[in-house]
Amino acid sequence: MTRALKIGIVAPASRLEPAMAERVTRLAAERHPSVGLHFHPQCYLSSGHFAGADAARAAAFVEIANDASFDAVWFARGGYGSCRVADAALAKLNEAARRKTYLGYSDAGALLAGLYAQGFRGLAHGPMPADIVRERGEEAVARALAYLAQRGAETLEPSIGPSGKTVAFNLMTFSQLIGTPLQPDLTGHVLMLEEVSEHMYRIDRSLFHITSNKAVRRVAGIRLGRCSDIPPNDPDFAQTEVEVVRHWCEASGIPYLGRADIGHDADNKIVPFGELRVA
Amino acid sequence: MTRALKIGIVAPASRLEPAMAERVTRLAAERHPSVGLHFHPQCYLSSGHFAGADAARAAAFVEIANDASFDAVWFARGGYGSCRVADAALAKLNEAARRKTYLGYSDAGALLAGLYAQGFRGLAHGPMPADIVRERGEEAVARALAYLAQRGAETLEPSIGPSGKTVAFNLMTFSQLIGTPLQPDLTGHVLMLEEVSEHMYRIDRSLFHITSNKAVRRVAGIRLGRCSDIPPNDPDFAQTEVEVVRHWCEASGIPYLGRADIGHDADNKIVPFGELRVA
Repeated sequence: MTRALKIGIVAPASRLEPAMAERVTRLAAERHPSVGLHFHPQCYLSSGHFAGADAARAAAFVEIANDASFDAVWFARGGYGSCRVADAALAKLNEAARRKTYLGYSDAGALLAGLYAQGFRGLAHGPMPADIVRERGEEAVARALAYLAQRGAETLEPSIGPSGKTVAFNLMTFSQLIGTPLQPDLTGHVLMLEEVSEHMYRIDRSLFHITSNKAVRRVAGIRLGRCSDIPPNDPDFAQTEVEVVRHWCEASGIPYLGRADIGHDADNKIVPFGELRVA
Repeated sequence: MTRALKIGIVAPASRLEPAMAERVTRLAAERHPSVGLHFHPQCYLSSGHFAGADAARAAAFVEIANDASFDAVWFARGGYGSCRVADAALAKLNEAARRKTYLGYSDAGALLAGLYAQGFRGLAHGPMPADIVRERGEEAVARALAYLAQRGAETLEPSIGPSGKTVAFNLMTFSQLIGTPLQPDLTGHVLMLEEVSEHMYRIDRSLFHITSNKAVRRVAGIRLGRCSDIPPNDPDFAQTEVEVVRHWCEASGIPYLGRADIGHDADNKIVPFGELRVA
């Protein structure tokens, strides 16, 4: 019999509503009774935009990450704020932190990137507890739990195979860490990018930014996830997100590899960072 | 008698309305009858978001920049698109282009940055023809013309003195060229930053991005221009733009030097790049 999986949930960015945590706890109890979820009380703190002050968010993350009794750190939600705690938090992680799984996406990408840059493995881009409130959100959260509990192949982004390295980020989150210590070496990786609620001109500009970086040009290729809820452009941008990513891939010499099944939605599949690890 | 100044106007980003050009031409004729303004017909082209296709915008810029009969290149307006033409255009500039003045701000900062990175001098951050439609916009345009015609001290951002180096950018435009070949070496410069129509969490994130870059940390300090038309943050960000820039200056060890008299408004003063050149 395997030891019960213990997952710690922290909120390095925006605050989680207690009702969301309750729904996720119920879902986990139904689907994975052997999994223990611990929502750190920091998730419910509030300080302006954030789930508590920078120091409180960093401390909660470090506490769970460094505690060997936890198998995984699950980021509660995105929003904004992970980059504000990354520097202080990453400096304090211990060996127990290196043996854990970390799962999240969107703004949490800033911490995933920084962890990857520091040689952490076991990182993955995928649904978070706050996704429970989306339409069909239970599917997203159940997928995350199934990945954390069993590494089920059905949870993975379908282009991911046994060979090759992958990584996934929110486009703007990734753009805003280019040229900082949080930028990981992605040589030879398939880079998957998704976006939500950004104007098409901003998607274009962030793709200029990313594909103009010399280190990013060493990726094996780019796959484009879903770009949802794009506000109207004035004037009309006259190019789709696929045309835009094709333009920048061509200009930079990065292969465009097609679409990725990720995005800010319930269908968001899991993208483990680096080489796929067999369960 | 000095030779009449000849200014060429091109639009590497968004399209200029002909009516704006007419108003600027009239103002220039009244205030500076010896100055010749040439609005390149490319300014009025339209291709989706842009003032013509990338190739047309790049060609117009190179044509005016490389023509020794022009003394200055004046960017028509911001919007978005300069980064799309920078790579192709900068590669084609000749010696005549190196002897010119270049004036603009906002999205045009991508080209100003790339020119500065390539050793061009005579660059300045300041009003553009499209500012004519702002409230008191004639003051802004007259200031730009007075700078181009006479380098008048009254046109300059007031903290600029005879010693020291300065540079100014729109915050988001500058953020989106960090880690690209357009990023100039700003060692020892006072870096002035202004913003418009960005949420406070985005201002915060861009300041994280910029101040986390190792090369940017070599600036002499940051001065904050106006951050105008900030959309409401949900939840309230609970920090002002000054608190935010102070936070990131403290975290990065960059001196915060106070406010700068620049912004997306009619009071936007001129910031020559590098050391002040006596007229």
